[in-house]
Amino acid sequence: MTKNTKVNAAILIIGNEILSGRTQDTNTSTLAIWLNSIGVKVGEVRVIPDIEKIIINTLQLLRSNYDYVFTTGGIGPTHDDITAESVSKTFELKYEIHKEAFKILEKYYKPGEFNKGRQKMSWMPKDADLILNPTSGAPGFSVENVFCLPGVPSILKSMLGGLKNKIVGGEPILSLTISLKTIESEIAKSLSEVQENNKNVEIGSYPFFQAGKLGVSIVIRSEDQLKIDKCKLQILDFVKTKKIEVVDR
Amino acid sequence: MTKNTKVNAAILIIGNEILSGRTQDTNTSTLAIWLNSIGVKVGEVRVIPDIEKIIINTLQLLRSNYDYVFTTGGIGPTHDDITAESVSKTFELKYEIHKEAFKILEKYYKPGEFNKGRQKMSWMPKDADLILNPTSGAPGFSVENVFCLPGVPSILKSMLGGLKNKIVGGEPILSLTISLKTIESEIAKSLSEVQENNKNVEIGSYPFFQAGKLGVSIVIRSEDQLKIDKCKLQILDFVKTKKIEVVDR
Repeated sequence: MTKNTKVNAAILIIGNEILSGRTQDTNTSTLAIWLNSIGVKVGEVRVIPDIEKIIINTLQLLRSNYDYVFTTGGIGPTHDDITAESVSKTFELKYEIHKEAFKILEKYYKPGEFNKGRQKMSWMPKDADLILNPTSGAPGFSVENVFCLPGVPSILKSMLGGLKNKIVGGEPILSLTISLKTIESEIAKSLSEVQENNKNVEIGSYPFFQAGKLGVSIVIRSEDQLKIDKCKLQILDFVKTKKIEVVDR
Repeated sequence: MTKNTKVNAAILIIGNEILSGRTQDTNTSTLAIWLNSIGVKVGEVRVIPDIEKIIINTLQLLRSNYDYVFTTGGIGPTHDDITAESVSKTFELKYEIHKEAFKILEKYYKPGEFNKGRQKMSWMPKDADLILNPTSGAPGFSVENVFCLPGVPSILKSMLGGLKNKIVGGEPILSLTISLKTIESEIAKSLSEVQENNKNVEIGSYPFFQAGKLGVSIVIRSEDQLKIDKCKLQILDFVKTKKIEVVDR
C-alpha cells in the first residue's frame, strides 16, 4: 500500500473554560504529538465556546478542509455538554441513545447508579462509531472524519490507544532538535540560508530560558530523514564556524 | 462615559511549534485572564502555521469579526518570524524600519552588537504603534485593532502593563467558582434548571481530580455581580438539599 504522505487534521477545542483562561488547554499538544507519530500533521487549532451554532458551522468548515477533525470537550453529562447533539445536527443525524454506549455505561456503574445524568452520555449521533474509554467508562465517538474526545486530559490520553486503528496516517513526521548556546540574532542569517537551500523542510527557531541557560533550539521537521540529516549537517557547519556550543536540552 | 458592556477579542497564536505539539501554548490563558479583567471577552482562539497567506487571511477575517485581535509569536529575528511582514500586507502598509523601535533596540544592545538579525526586529508596518517590552527590548506593535505580541510567555506577560491603556474594555467579566465534593451526573439536572432560570449568565461545570479529591467546579460568569449572586444562592440551595459538601479548591 502506498501511503499518502500528506494527511492533515484540525483540532477543535470546545469549551468556555479555555476561552476564559480558567483552564489551560493541554490536549492540543497531546493530540499533535500523537498525530505526528502516526503521520498526521495538524494544520490548525480552534478554540470555540459551547454554542451550538458556532460548533456546527466550525465543524462543517473544518471537516471539509482537513482529512480529520478531532474535537475535545463537551461530551459529559451536564447542560453545557452539547458536542454530541451539535455533531448530530452537523451531519443531520438523529440524536439518540446509542445502544452499545448505553450497555457499556450500564455495566460500568453500580446497579441503581446509572441515573439520567449518566444516561445522557450515551446519547450520540445515530450509528456513531464508539471510541472506548478505559479510564471512566463514557465512550467518545466518531462520525465520518470527525472524532469526538473528552476534555479531561488524563481521560483523553487514555483513549488514544483505541483510536489508532481508526486513523490512516501518512509518513510519520520526523523531527530533530539542535540546541545551541547562542541567541537567535547570532544565527538568523545563516539559518535563513539553510532554509533557502532546503525549501521542503520546516526549520523553526525557538529561544529558550531554562535553569539560567539562554539558548536557541532549532527544530528541523520533515517526513524524510535524509532531508533532515542534510539540514543538520549544514547547520552544524555554520555552528562550528561561529564557534557556538551545542548543548543538551 | 457609558461603557459598552460587550467588547470581544480573538487570539491568534502564530507558530508551527504549537501545531507540532513541541511547545505547549500558555499565552491563551494569560491573555484571556488579563482581557477578562479589563472587560474584554475572548470569543475565539486560532492556532495557525508560519505561512504568510494563512496569517493574512486569518487576520482579515478575525479583525472584522472582533473588536480586538491579539497575535502571539513570529516577531523575532529569524527567518520563520514573519508576523510583522504579514501584518503589513494585511493592512497594505509598507514594511519598513520603524525609527522609534530602531532607536530602542540600538540603545538596548551594546555598541557593535546591534547586528542585522537584531535590526530585523525593528522592521514593522509603517507608522505602527509600539508596545514596549521591559524584558528584552524588542517592542511589539499594533495597527488599528490588531496587537502583535511575542511568543515567549514571560516576555508577553511583561508587556501587558504597557498595553492596558490602549484597550477600551467593557464591564469586567466577573466569575465565581463553587467547588463540590460530587460528580457531574449527580447535579446535572439541578444545574441545568439553574441555567434555564438564569439565561444571561454563563454556567460551566468542570470535573476535577486533584490530590486524590474527585469533584466538580461550577463556574458562574457574568458582568453583573447580582446575577452571579442569584445563581449562587440557587446552586447552594440544591447543594444543601442533596447534602453535597462544598470544598475549597
